[in-house]
Amino acid sequence: MLENKNNRTELRDLGEFGLIEQIKSRTELKNAGSVKGIGDDAAVIDCGGKLCVVSTDMLVEGVHFDLAYCPLRHLGYKAVVVNLSDIFAMNAVPQQITVSIGVSNRFSLEAIEAFYEGVYLACEHYEVDLVGGDTSSSAGGFIISVTAIGYAEKDQLVYRDTAAEHDLICVTGDLGAAYLGLQVLEREKSVYKDNPRIQPDLSGYDYIIERQLKPEARWDIIERLKENGIKPTSMIDISDGLASELIHICRASGTGCAIYEDKIPVDPATHSAAADFNLNATVCALSGGEDYELLFTVKLADLEKIKKIKDISLIGHITEKAQGMFMVTDAGASVQLTAQGWDAFLNKGDPRE
Amino acid sequence: MLENKNNRTELRDLGEFGLIEQIKSRTELKNAGSVKGIGDDAAVIDCGGKLCVVSTDMLVEGVHFDLAYCPLRHLGYKAVVVNLSDIFAMNAVPQQITVSIGVSNRFSLEAIEAFYEGVYLACEHYEVDLVGGDTSSSAGGFIISVTAIGYAEKDQLVYRDTAAEHDLICVTGDLGAAYLGLQVLEREKSVYKDNPRIQPDLSGYDYIIERQLKPEARWDIIERLKENGIKPTSMIDISDGLASELIHICRASGTGCAIYEDKIPVDPATHSAAADFNLNATVCALSGGEDYELLFTVKLADLEKIKKIKDISLIGHITEKAQGMFMVTDAGASVQLTAQGWDAFLNKGDPRE
Repeated sequence: MLENKNNRTELRDLGEFGLIEQIKSRTELKNAGSVKGIGDDAAVIDCGGKLCVVSTDMLVEGVHFDLAYCPLRHLGYKAVVVNLSDIFAMNAVPQQITVSIGVSNRFSLEAIEAFYEGVYLACEHYEVDLVGGDTSSSAGGFIISVTAIGYAEKDQLVYRDTAAEHDLICVTGDLGAAYLGLQVLEREKSVYKDNPRIQPDLSGYDYIIERQLKPEARWDIIERLKENGIKPTSMIDISDGLASELIHICRASGTGCAIYEDKIPVDPATHSAAADFNLNATVCALSGGEDYELLFTVKLADLEKIKKIKDISLIGHITEKAQGMFMVTDAGASVQLTAQGWDAFLNKGDPRE
Repeated sequence: MLENKNNRTELRDLGEFGLIEQIKSRTELKNAGSVKGIGDDAAVIDCGGKLCVVSTDMLVEGVHFDLAYCPLRHLGYKAVVVNLSDIFAMNAVPQQITVSIGVSNRFSLEAIEAFYEGVYLACEHYEVDLVGGDTSSSAGGFIISVTAIGYAEKDQLVYRDTAAEHDLICVTGDLGAAYLGLQVLEREKSVYKDNPRIQPDLSGYDYIIERQLKPEARWDIIERLKENGIKPTSMIDISDGLASELIHICRASGTGCAIYEDKIPVDPATHSAAADFNLNATVCALSGGEDYELLFTVKLADLEKIKKIKDISLIGHITEKAQGMFMVTDAGASVQLTAQGWDAFLNKGDPRE
């Protein structure tokens, strides 16, 4: 039934974004309440009062996480945070989540409780309520599906398709650390596999490992933007790497962009780990993914206001579409941005130099 | 990390409902908008206008469906319908869904398209919009997570914990067919496995197979109850078998119940298939599951109004708690109802006589 070899298109040839485009092309919103469907960080629904913002993510063991080094408590926390990050990226405030899990009999009640410890902790930290979900068995492995629901006043929502020429491009925090944290964890796992008597050597990698295992969503930035009277012109969260997300904004908005390598925020610990792994830190920031920082654009007129907010870096500006999407390197060269971010149907691209 | 054998509680000892109780006991709703959390067919959220109703389900290949006999198109349709059924069971109207899938490289684009064909068809039939989701790879097998969102006026919502003594117990349609449809499909699969040259013999089983592969949610009943000015006193959809759902209502409402075997609606095709399989049709109706009919209670005063609506059967009445939960058999005996419905962590109980 599935395997008509003569008429078979491999998903990896299409890629995740290709598949999403396919699905989107067939959907048509008919209900008046469906404001925004597939194609942003979250869907937007008008239920009579504020606008309701809905985002959902699926996490699969062996694809998105490895329980060899990801404690279940951290996994529960991260599963919630990555969804809340999508809600913040709409400039909305999350209020409820549902959490569904599928688990095989490899997992005990104690294991599930450890997972939910993390879920509850995230709920407490981000002031959201766990209101529902589903529990299922799975043929093998741990499967998680989280849906987050948030709210915003109609005029407060920020989409990804509304950047305009001359807007400033901003990112929060620093980038590339989560990807390098993953490399450290993967390395120590394979060392341990080869020789279980060798203790994992994670010293000096605390920051990047924490960025991988326990990311935070940038609620604080959303709050500070509001306090300072700034409404971004477009926004997206960085789950697949800076390059991929910036391309999303530019394509959706019909613009180009120019960013500067020396402006991309990279933590010293990330630089140092990148050197250890013979990786280029900028490439990790552009293509590594899982940073869960915010990428947004603001009007040029907001420049002075933005500068006052801590932990935001200005990395470039939006150009007209014809100018393309470029990064000016430290050496002064202009290189075209390519989306080498995480693709759910490919192995992660290897950002070696 | 997972396998502390000395302090390990098996999930199968706890069961799905036990696990849900554990999760629920730790959740506390803090946001004013969170009206109802875990413990009904759907969560209820107040977002300023109407009430918003959210339900989510996870379906896992090898646990909830078998692609050997479940066409992907039907699977897409069913995955949507089972979620919409939960929304109707709140007396709400679904408007949006999100669909997340995890697929291995066993699946081609054409296979995914077939699945979404079914999703789109259900969207069209039930007038809901597909507004989002996630696409992921999986280590093996097909994983589906659907979230449905519906709306109702505050005074229209119907919960499961509000049945009262003397209320009439009603069910829609007929029960047990989907379970017997599954038995036919399983039998033909094993025959085919033993001898691939034998063609599957599904003749005479059309109705029960359709009930298994392409269930419908009872939107029509919700509409007719409204038209006739009836608001159920409690309601739940029948996904795990009549007995299990009735026990949910009674436990949540703090009541007992008495139902009559001869009043339980069973289609002649179900009776006939039950005989072929040497099964008791009543047991299939009580414990089979996947009927997606509605079980609800109404005030005694609504008796005449209810009788006018086609496709609703009165099967008994709510009693005080002390009287327990009983079924009066055709032979006149009183038997206690037990929840032998589908348990996600157990194999399905075998309802042989």
